[in-house]
Amino acid sequence: MSAPLADQLDIVIPTIRNLDFLEDWRPFFEPYHLIIVQDGDPTKKIAIPEGFSYELYNRNDIERILGDKAWAISFKDSACRCFGFMVSKKKYIYTIDDDCFVAKDPSGNRINVMEQHIKNLLTPSTPFFFNTLYDPYREGVDFVRGYPFSLREGVPTATSHGLWLNIPDYDAPTQMVKPKERNTRYVDTVMTVPKGTLYPMCGMNLAFDRELIGAAMYFGLMGEGQPIGRYDDMWAGWCTKVICDHLGLGCKTGLPYVWHSKASNPFVNLRKEYKGIFWQEEIIPFFQKLTLSKTNTNVEDLYLELAEKVRQGLGHIDPYFSKLADGMVAWIEGWRLLNPPKAA
Amino acid sequence: MSAPLADQLDIVIPTIRNLDFLEDWRPFFEPYHLIIVQDGDPTKKIAIPEGFSYELYNRNDIERILGDKAWAISFKDSACRCFGFMVSKKKYIYTIDDDCFVAKDPSGNRINVMEQHIKNLLTPSTPFFFNTLYDPYREGVDFVRGYPFSLREGVPTATSHGLWLNIPDYDAPTQMVKPKERNTRYVDTVMTVPKGTLYPMCGMNLAFDRELIGAAMYFGLMGEGQPIGRYDDMWAGWCTKVICDHLGLGCKTGLPYVWHSKASNPFVNLRKEYKGIFWQEEIIPFFQKLTLSKTNTNVEDLYLELAEKVRQGLGHIDPYFSKLADGMVAWIEGWRLLNPPKAA
Repeated sequence: MSAPLADQLDIVIPTIRNLDFLEDWRPFFEPYHLIIVQDGDPTKKIAIPEGFSYELYNRNDIERILGDKAWAISFKDSACRCFGFMVSKKKYIYTIDDDCFVAKDPSGNRINVMEQHIKNLLTPSTPFFFNTLYDPYREGVDFVRGYPFSLREGVPTATSHGLWLNIPDYDAPTQMVKPKERNTRYVDTVMTVPKGTLYPMCGMNLAFDRELIGAAMYFGLMGEGQPIGRYDDMWAGWCTKVICDHLGLGCKTGLPYVWHSKASNPFVNLRKEYKGIFWQEEIIPFFQKLTLSKTNTNVEDLYLELAEKVRQGLGHIDPYFSKLADGMVAWIEGWRLLNPPKAA
Repeated sequence: MSAPLADQLDIVIPTIRNLDFLEDWRPFFEPYHLIIVQDGDPTKKIAIPEGFSYELYNRNDIERILGDKAWAISFKDSACRCFGFMVSKKKYIYTIDDDCFVAKDPSGNRINVMEQHIKNLLTPSTPFFFNTLYDPYREGVDFVRGYPFSLREGVPTATSHGLWLNIPDYDAPTQMVKPKERNTRYVDTVMTVPKGTLYPMCGMNLAFDRELIGAAMYFGLMGEGQPIGRYDDMWAGWCTKVICDHLGLGCKTGLPYVWHSKASNPFVNLRKEYKGIFWQEEIIPFFQKLTLSKTNTNVEDLYLELAEKVRQGLGHIDPYFSKLADGMVAWIEGWRLLNPPKAA
């Protein structure tokens, strides 16, 4: 099996349990290096199937490596995965949840998620104008009549957001109302989320270009000691989208699908989510109206600028946002510690 | 076969030939009334298969009905179809080209375009935030986690833009470079084009709510005596999209597909298009930056406001745009003649 970019991509997996699910992924993941971020009790021993190249970090490792910045990495929440983004030295990241398995396309073939995500990342995005036949860079299709020629070169792609068959990624209220709903529809497309439009980025099946946008892929303060959960990936999605829009980078969504095996408990989810459900009604207009300094073109600096805007623009909702802004600053300090500027 | 809204929708067909293609559509179109706009020589007799309810207008009829506004309706160009939009008394319009036939879905079933377009028009649109599982109002799917609850009611849908299998709607340069490309990919989705994003609206397979947006669905000045062609639907697409964005209405694209039978001649197309290919590089930024008066909420008035902006903002490109602005004004005058305000 071909393994594109095998030496340039790390797979990041947050977990609290034995990684038996890797057996299903073996043909696709074995050529890549894994970064496993063990959440919860660091003394617990996690079993990893034979044959995979990996490094594993538990809470003690995070504390040791980041020292007084370690508090910015969430504990007892899959938001801890962003430590893996920070510690990687590769250009690309793919991250997946450990309850996701290989999905099949409508012809019954097992889907190679790595191949599709890498295709998405290596072909341009088209955020400035909508192509009605979808991804114009795909085999067998092109830009339609009326698409400006000056925009056909596209822009670099920063993120590739993949979808899920079986259990859809619903919030607790929707889970409760539609406990039996399953996603069986395979929509055979990848598209760029247009400039100026926000989308709910899910961390379950996500790839990105670490060099282009990694410094903004912070999953926030969630889990133990925090008033909300299950907004970690949403936070990263809003932040990365506004920064991509500012920098002229693309965010794609659509293929590839994974098979999401089980719904999390909607009662537990509701407790984690309920403040977020209120807060997002103010957070989203905040991000929709946000503008960043034209002269600022560095992702790390843009993220620090955004942190200050969060402190000032969202602080009135809850003191949490001031702490989150501190977390964003600490994240960049940690990022710079582990990713010092390359020598000129 | 069910025929939703049979008494509230007209099918508009521009043509220069016998309408044999209707035989293929008989089960789907027969319950609806047809408005046939005969282009070219008005003395030519066009054959229409038995059993259809229709009215037919040729150039003489257009001149007689519109008098000194008739010049605003293009001659020798499928842009003449918009006369049918104006003369209809129904709430909804579906328009189709006479080289389009019934397409099949991946299971081999003949696609009922009417049913799908009407579903698209009768369910809300979501222009303010992107739903990653696509159309949230479709059976078996909903809004995903992180979609603001305040936006889940959606907004009224003004247009439903359907796609094409077989011959894709390419411009002349792309036709020339890829003469053998055929669209075989059935993408099983309908989506809202986000607010602030323009799209290339094709008139080949298009439905809309005449009451909501009909007055802006003018196909411009094309064909005989005009410097460009093949931008009629694009023009209508840009104008309707900015007005829908202004009014908080939705434009959907995707399903249903028709089977587009034959490519038009790329050499003829290039002659019609080439000025448009240059001009659209300025027209599109003009529409992207356009703002309309907040206090203006009537489609006809908005279209007149847009006409003046076109005259002032695009007149420097070519004297054509000043004439086009006049055409837009004459169109609204004709529209008001045939669609007088309803008594209170």
